[in-house]
Amino acid sequence: MTYCVGMMLDQGIAFMSDTRTSAGLDNISTFGKMTTWEAPGDRVLTIMTAGNLATTQSVVSLLDERTKAPDERVPTLLEVPSMFQAARLVADTLREVIARQGEEGQRADSTFNATIILGGQIAGGPPRLFLIYPEGNFIEAGEDTAFFQIGEMKYGRPILVRAYDRTLKFEEAMKLLLVSFDSTLKANLTVGAPFDFHLYEKDSFREGHKGRIEEDDPFFQKIRTAWSAALKSALDGLDDFEL
Amino acid sequence: MTYCVGMMLDQGIAFMSDTRTSAGLDNISTFGKMTTWEAPGDRVLTIMTAGNLATTQSVVSLLDERTKAPDERVPTLLEVPSMFQAARLVADTLREVIARQGEEGQRADSTFNATIILGGQIAGGPPRLFLIYPEGNFIEAGEDTAFFQIGEMKYGRPILVRAYDRTLKFEEAMKLLLVSFDSTLKANLTVGAPFDFHLYEKDSFREGHKGRIEEDDPFFQKIRTAWSAALKSALDGLDDFEL
Repeated sequence: MTYCVGMMLDQGIAFMSDTRTSAGLDNISTFGKMTTWEAPGDRVLTIMTAGNLATTQSVVSLLDERTKAPDERVPTLLEVPSMFQAARLVADTLREVIARQGEEGQRADSTFNATIILGGQIAGGPPRLFLIYPEGNFIEAGEDTAFFQIGEMKYGRPILVRAYDRTLKFEEAMKLLLVSFDSTLKANLTVGAPFDFHLYEKDSFREGHKGRIEEDDPFFQKIRTAWSAALKSALDGLDDFEL
Repeated sequence: MTYCVGMMLDQGIAFMSDTRTSAGLDNISTFGKMTTWEAPGDRVLTIMTAGNLATTQSVVSLLDERTKAPDERVPTLLEVPSMFQAARLVADTLREVIARQGEEGQRADSTFNATIILGGQIAGGPPRLFLIYPEGNFIEAGEDTAFFQIGEMKYGRPILVRAYDRTLKFEEAMKLLLVSFDSTLKANLTVGAPFDFHLYEKDSFREGHKGRIEEDDPFFQKIRTAWSAALKSALDGLDDFEL
């Protein structure tokens, strides 16, 4: 399983992904699920993937190869004129990979599927965030729903729904994301640290702050402990039910 | 969908269930999912059901009919000597109903399935809580996992995992349950108020405090508002991430 969140903020876009891949509970590994392409001054694109690892790796490899050998298929991610066209390109590539696995006689229904979050900014347009489905269509984050989750999204959703706000600064968004990831981690063994993050600053047109947070990261540990305590005291603070 | 929680406490057992039944999003109704049998001074048994409504209603009807016409099949829920035997009886009845629907030529795979929480106390033994699977086997709440959830359990789980404690009083357990139900309600349209609850007092051998909490219940409204505010301020209270 996987857990990734992409979040539109006034300040830019925050991305966070876990790194656990599992083929059964007895076979887990660490794979990055976040990839960023950058053409400084012109564009930054980040994608996060959930689903079949073979599919998502193929999609990323194809997208990447084509930026390097642009003769093969144009335009590439580094050439498309808008974020919307970038989303179409990623969606088409995803559909192509899934279809090819089907054509080759392999049958596993939904097993080859994958879902992708794409966000970034291309010169001439604002930052945009898309959720791309295995069917090859996609939706864009709007005013009302300005964050997307993929993978094991349920455990970490309640806190996002309640505390997300476009005006959050990156410093605040990071702790909200870590709390959401912590809730997921506590409940589902197939979501695991370390977590990769990328904080893209609006109109910067270059990679923002990126990093990896390990399970024993002192800040993450502090957030986990403080959050558990804060929740308990928040609950204590509510009026008791009168019997 | 459904959301039910059964929770062992030092004080007794707390049960809470939602009441929404849906056959598609355009066809929702209110059905109680909690049933209690009582033989004052001797036993109290409460079950909560999740899954196919036809199955769960049949199970409850069969269990209930047999207590009233005990000749048909003995022992009944009002006669079994222990909670363990009660769990076996409920499990056998569940398996019987599911199997009969299969035998009659209806095929819908898991659609006829149901999961049941059974809790209560029978004179001579302690209060016990069971989770009964559609396959007809069951597990009992132990020291480490002393609550069970059935149905749409993920959204409401993080707060239970963090704040549950056997020593909670009923007054506190009720607010914890309502917070957990509120998180679920916010995220899944197929879980809905009103919520039924039953607070069985250990060694009382009679029905405890029972009731129904409507969506516009002032206490529930207060909990919802206060919880949202408390979460936000808990998050604000955490240190910001340093970039």
